[in-house]
Amino acid sequence: MDFNKVVEGRRSVRKFTDHVVTDAQLNEALESLRYTPSWANSQCWEIIAIRDNEVMKQLAEESYPKNPATKCSLTASLILVACYDKTKSGFYKGHSFNDVGTWGMFDLGMACQALSLKLHEMGLGSVVVGAYDSTKAKEILNIDGDYEIAAIMPVGKPVAETPMPKRREVSEFLHIDKLK
Amino acid sequence: MDFNKVVEGRRSVRKFTDHVVTDAQLNEALESLRYTPSWANSQCWEIIAIRDNEVMKQLAEESYPKNPATKCSLTASLILVACYDKTKSGFYKGHSFNDVGTWGMFDLGMACQALSLKLHEMGLGSVVVGAYDSTKAKEILNIDGDYEIAAIMPVGKPVAETPMPKRREVSEFLHIDKLK
Repeated sequence: MDFNKVVEGRRSVRKFTDHVVTDAQLNEALESLRYTPSWANSQCWEIIAIRDNEVMKQLAEESYPKNPATKCSLTASLILVACYDKTKSGFYKGHSFNDVGTWGMFDLGMACQALSLKLHEMGLGSVVVGAYDSTKAKEILNIDGDYEIAAIMPVGKPVAETPMPKRREVSEFLHIDKLK
Repeated sequence: MDFNKVVEGRRSVRKFTDHVVTDAQLNEALESLRYTPSWANSQCWEIIAIRDNEVMKQLAEESYPKNPATKCSLTASLILVACYDKTKSGFYKGHSFNDVGTWGMFDLGMACQALSLKLHEMGLGSVVVGAYDSTKAKEILNIDGDYEIAAIMPVGKPVAETPMPKRREVSEFLHIDKLK
């Protein structure tokens, strides 16, 4: 599909048909993620593909019970959990840059954007869940040590086209030479 | 251009021709960024387009003097600085999710991926600079209050095609149902 059509047509999808996302589709989507740039090519991403309905149910009900994406997570055939190794990205000779110290979140944002665009290109939809209880989610998914969750993304075939939410104009966020 | 061709062909570019990026190109690239999803559609991005050679020189020499992207930043016709309002993204009723508390970095990663892909689609190249002295950079660009820099991206026309860096295979980062 044409690049601009993909970018302009992607929506956050929270209502899926009963189409079961295949392993071939999962792999095709993740192939696109591989090309994502990352801090010193550290590729700090680890992707959990949840296929087990019980795990999905537990994750949604216990770590994001009141999210706009909870309902679709309970019937999804695939939930992706994008994790990162927090020691791998954002450091040079042990020194953390950017003050915030979480460059892994930036890298994973890039990776998840590639993923969400690719899924749309394949006729699938997804939504990024950011508001979850990470302690509970990590417990359910056996995530510990240096690994953190960046985002949770239920995936499925969209039931319908959704309108584009209102977006700021370029002139509203573009600044020349300095912020002020 | 075909979506997959864009994703697979994009490279981090650190050597530019003397082509001057036009205002029309800048605006076309930023139009693509507008479609990026963000926390509760908060669109917390602010983009500084540096056009003034003196500001570019000061930014590169004082905030990232030894980066692989320093040299191309000194001759670039455009440097983009992607900032975010750290109070806008990642919160619900004042509560910060994800422990790390920097969902803005994730949102900006998504936005910068859209930008870098679009620039490639337009025949331009860019590179994400993450290792910079943010205190100095913020001083130079009049960034204060709740605003933080996520990434700095010099932009230009690539001198040559660069080979694809080695990337992990899907099988190396895909986990089924649980991380371990």
